[in-house]
Amino acid sequence: MSNTPDTDNAVRAYVDSHRAAFLAELSEWLRIPSVSADPARADDVRRSAQWLRDHLAATGFPVAEIWDTPGAPAVFAEWPSGDPDALTVLVYGHHDVQPADREDGWRTDPFEPVIEDGRLYARGAADDKGQVLFHTLGIRAHLSATGRGAPAVNLKLLIEGEEESGSPHFPELIRAHADRLACDTVIVSDTGMWSEDTPTVCTGMRGLVDCQIDLHGPGQDIHSGSFGGAVPNPATEAARLAAALHDADRKVAIPGFYDGVVELTDRERALFAELPFDEADWLRTAHSRATLGEAGYSTLERIWARPTAEVNGIGGGYQGPGGKTIVPSAAQLKLSFRLVAGQDVEKVQAAVRDWVAAQLPAGIRHEITYWGATRPCLTPLDHPALQSVVRAMGRAFGQEIRFTREGGSGPAADLQDVLGAPVLFLGISVPSDGWHAPNEKVELGLLMKGAETAAHLWDDLAENGRE
Amino acid sequence: MSNTPDTDNAVRAYVDSHRAAFLAELSEWLRIPSVSADPARADDVRRSAQWLRDHLAATGFPVAEIWDTPGAPAVFAEWPSGDPDALTVLVYGHHDVQPADREDGWRTDPFEPVIEDGRLYARGAADDKGQVLFHTLGIRAHLSATGRGAPAVNLKLLIEGEEESGSPHFPELIRAHADRLACDTVIVSDTGMWSEDTPTVCTGMRGLVDCQIDLHGPGQDIHSGSFGGAVPNPATEAARLAAALHDADRKVAIPGFYDGVVELTDRERALFAELPFDEADWLRTAHSRATLGEAGYSTLERIWARPTAEVNGIGGGYQGPGGKTIVPSAAQLKLSFRLVAGQDVEKVQAAVRDWVAAQLPAGIRHEITYWGATRPCLTPLDHPALQSVVRAMGRAFGQEIRFTREGGSGPAADLQDVLGAPVLFLGISVPSDGWHAPNEKVELGLLMKGAETAAHLWDDLAENGRE
Repeated sequence: MSNTPDTDNAVRAYVDSHRAAFLAELSEWLRIPSVSADPARADDVRRSAQWLRDHLAATGFPVAEIWDTPGAPAVFAEWPSGDPDALTVLVYGHHDVQPADREDGWRTDPFEPVIEDGRLYARGAADDKGQVLFHTLGIRAHLSATGRGAPAVNLKLLIEGEEESGSPHFPELIRAHADRLACDTVIVSDTGMWSEDTPTVCTGMRGLVDCQIDLHGPGQDIHSGSFGGAVPNPATEAARLAAALHDADRKVAIPGFYDGVVELTDRERALFAELPFDEADWLRTAHSRATLGEAGYSTLERIWARPTAEVNGIGGGYQGPGGKTIVPSAAQLKLSFRLVAGQDVEKVQAAVRDWVAAQLPAGIRHEITYWGATRPCLTPLDHPALQSVVRAMGRAFGQEIRFTREGGSGPAADLQDVLGAPVLFLGISVPSDGWHAPNEKVELGLLMKGAETAAHLWDDLAENGRE
Repeated sequence: MSNTPDTDNAVRAYVDSHRAAFLAELSEWLRIPSVSADPARADDVRRSAQWLRDHLAATGFPVAEIWDTPGAPAVFAEWPSGDPDALTVLVYGHHDVQPADREDGWRTDPFEPVIEDGRLYARGAADDKGQVLFHTLGIRAHLSATGRGAPAVNLKLLIEGEEESGSPHFPELIRAHADRLACDTVIVSDTGMWSEDTPTVCTGMRGLVDCQIDLHGPGQDIHSGSFGGAVPNPATEAARLAAALHDADRKVAIPGFYDGVVELTDRERALFAELPFDEADWLRTAHSRATLGEAGYSTLERIWARPTAEVNGIGGGYQGPGGKTIVPSAAQLKLSFRLVAGQDVEKVQAAVRDWVAAQLPAGIRHEITYWGATRPCLTPLDHPALQSVVRAMGRAFGQEIRFTREGGSGPAADLQDVLGAPVLFLGISVPSDGWHAPNEKVELGLLMKGAETAAHLWDDLAENGRE
């Protein structure tokens, strides 16, 4: 078997010697502003897919294709092992990125990567282009260190282009291509780990339902002195809706919202509690001054294992300088709900819909628009393939690997459902990377450990990864 | 005495024959976009003051001056009666206007007056340039019809330039000039009446406190999956504040808010109830689909005689197209409170300040900015000068004059306090005029009745107006 110090050294040497070229390639990709939420960036998202397809072909994947969807294109690549009995692994990631404007607080152009103090700053550096691309360095290190002509597993990659827009066409895409995507194990590289010092494997992701609620009151803005206090005000009603999302214990107050929630086990709570959590550090990463959340749960439990409701945006009436004494004609609320295992996306959407309708007074019209939905997912701690990931990371990091969950959301559960394969997570991003925020970055040291882990993983999975 | 059919006919003939010239002058004034809330319009507000001063001098006022303030200038004019025992009357109005943009829903340029179907459309047509200017036509009709060389009362005009910005320097201005403003009676022409068919005299105005509350949470927008549900969200807190403004009965829930409120008497409630109120008509004027307000009060009582809290604007987080899964870093709330007689502006401001501080969780910083404040005011129904106004209107309209109050706010109470004179209201605007809204207009027929009323009023006050 190839789990030897020699192999480890060979992998590390390969990764180190190809680091500069790898970073140049990643930077080239990061310069393409593949913002899937912005219709004006559709061509950039396509350019990003083309860049990745060409890069995968150049890496050696015999198959590298663009898969069109009604929205943004995905990229599929395949590299058969040559061994008819080999395990098949599908790596999932995404090549689209969150919106980013220099004015949001970026110190440098979000689409002009800058390397500084061992970090690479750019939109998508950690979420998710960096974590997709370490796999191409990893597979080359795997082949070089083991002397193989093809990977130890049948390796497939599916890199979608709409993850930051809620993956609206992803379930359809994987259903349509289920045959070609067939696999024994899914590796999702779109998550983080605890910290640079405490490498961890993620065992689950929360799901996501998000929506916009538009409220309409008076047909136009009206004088607050002449009419205020006697007609419903849509800004007030938007506020009352947002306020009614949580009860006094900050539990979500929508009837039925918690139906089916898989509660934390005592063992999971104990494992979470063992992590070196420092509230002051965490608050710095969160750019926040205090914690606040569901009563009866720790901060880690709140962000990893509890469903939440969040106001992403609210707007209505006059927002310019000074005052304007009006009852506004309309208001808008953007809400997102994080879901945990056991919650059903459609049932949550229906519960929100019923709750909104029940809250609003006569005279306020409303519409709800759902932006798409992502199911929650959870991997058993004792799964053999999860143990392979833990060993591969252990070799790369030289440390004990602990367990976390991911508070964010990805289409992992869809892969699990459609392909019938367990979903594992291999991510090297850390909380300070600033996903979705200005000045997103990735730690270069961790990016290289990610490539090493990917280089070790295929041999271990080939030997031990079957259930 | 001059209360004769001959005088009435002479006044009407004068007003009719000068109508076209008057409308041309008013249109010239309305073309000056004197938006006091917009610092970029400061020169226009000054031009508006200059235009009015010149117009008053041309009308015959021996004194016509611009009075500077730290903000926008006011205009003062004086026309002594010549009779040493004559009553002194001060007319109050304002020459600044609300903001208006074509894009807000105006069918025509808000600063290019259009006359159509007996109406004049322009920002300020009714609020308040039209109602200021009918006095100049009125005084000329008064002199022409009575053959006088000077008005029957010592006539003073004070037309301020910051009413739509909450009159921040008005109390200071009138205190500084209290000697020159000294009077027996104040006539405020900045209110409305019931309808074209039901002329009314207003007996009180609500006061106004308005403010902006800025809430700060995370130092930047953060990922709702990584941090949401575990830190305070300023958009949620802004919504909770706005929602907590009212209890389930839509009473204002701020402790101390109702302290001192002068409750409606049975007689006032009966007079209100006699007015031909048609809820469907009123809702059309309010561009609204339903009434909603403080339990236990009628719509008229809610807008005229009850204090209210209104959300004029709310904003925070992502408001662009689609979704963005963030916890926003900041949110903002613009609130206004209408006050009734007995409420104290400073006490309400302090109550709001205390209440806001008590509502917010740890981790949310906030600032409150007050935009200025206007005190409420109420005139006794049996005041002799009020009876003069009722008679003068009765001659102009040929109908019984009923009583209303005004839900809006003006600096009437400051005049009452500083000058020690009772405040009366002479306004001819109707609810459909669209104050503060797109397509503001004034009914030309009512504008002429206003001029006639002003022409009759000075004789009646001279004879009967003393307490």
